Amino acid sequence: MSSPSSLDELIDALRALPGVGPKSAQRIAYHLLQRDQRGAGRLARALGHALDVLRHCERCNTFAETAICQRCANPQRDSSLLCVVEMPADLAMMEQTHAYNGLYYVLMGRLSPLDGIGPRELKLDKLLARAADSAVREVILATNFTNEGEATAHMIAELLGARGVAVSRLSRGVPVGGELEHTDTGTIAQALVERRAV
Amino acid sequence: MSSPSSLDELIDALRALPGVGPKSAQRIAYHLLQRDQRGAGRLARALGHALDVLRHCERCNTFAETAICQRCANPQRDSSLLCVVEMPADLAMMEQTHAYNGLYYVLMGRLSPLDGIGPRELKLDKLLARAADSAVREVILATNFTNEGEATAHMIAELLGARGVAVSRLSRGVPVGGELEHTDTGTIAQALVERRAV
Repeated sequence: MSSPSSLDELIDALRALPGVGPKSAQRIAYHLLQRDQRGAGRLARALGHALDVLRHCERCNTFAETAICQRCANPQRDSSLLCVVEMPADLAMMEQTHAYNGLYYVLMGRLSPLDGIGPRELKLDKLLARAADSAVREVILATNFTNEGEATAHMIAELLGARGVAVSRLSRGVPVGGELEHTDTGTIAQALVERRAV
Repeated sequence: MSSPSSLDELIDALRALPGVGPKSAQRIAYHLLQRDQRGAGRLARALGHALDVLRHCERCNTFAETAICQRCANPQRDSSLLCVVEMPADLAMMEQTHAYNGLYYVLMGRLSPLDGIGPRELKLDKLLARAADSAVREVILATNFTNEGEATAHMIAELLGARGVAVSRLSRGVPVGGELEHTDTGTIAQALVERRAV
């Protein structure tokens, strides 16, 4: 279609965005170039800068601009607890509960055989090394309660259990404020199995 | 959530992408930084480069790296015909028909009062100036057959008609290969109104 090569290259490069095919890439390119050049310039700079400065915290594996992130370097946090989450967004949710003051380990993913992500791709050995820290008394598994998150938790529990580390998992059950009538039966069944003495 | 500022800035900048809200922006940022750093780097460079080098062709208004695009500079094209389309993607579709050898004018949009895009924002005066070229014998309106595209065509037809320029519009009707049973009644009604003698 003899469009300028810089435009073709941009449309092709936009396909690095998750879920963006050729038609969407074209639409996005036109939008950025035509309707939001200022936003586009900011995006190009922010992306380049983030790639330059962001790395993974040596302790918790989340994105950080320093070797050790602020949270891991904070002596106020309880270093005897290590909470394992899938993504930084999950860590943020845990923090928003204001119910946890321990440290974290962020997997940056989950086991997902279909996507070719196994224990090696998840770098579980880095987690094992982190959990071997003598300060850690308990590892709390807070991966998602999806099939993949459960499988991930299961494998980590096995690996850590074999090393004599105490491991726990967030409880499953009816959501706070939830009505049984509007809760799925699988969750109710699980809440029954994991019922607690009162 | 005390995430690194370069990450926050990237997530915020990603919202320049059409239809991307805070949650999607976060997901895209993690994807680019974690799973596709090479693609992300390429995107940052392609976006910056496109912003640097792309401009609008002085004659047809489409994206070009030169003052006059290759198509407008091609003496083989019939300069007596000027086809008005909304976007470069529409131009590409017209070209793929191999049924047109005239020149184009790309509006880079359509009238859309709800989005604040009126005749001024569409720079219709640039089109009027282009159509005033003595070589142009006919302007063919090929905006979409949506409400906005029809309104755009209508306004352009009025403006050009007042200046004595011959204006035509792509015909509406049943698609080639289309079965009446599976064609919407509005299209069939229009095909009836615009029926041609055989």
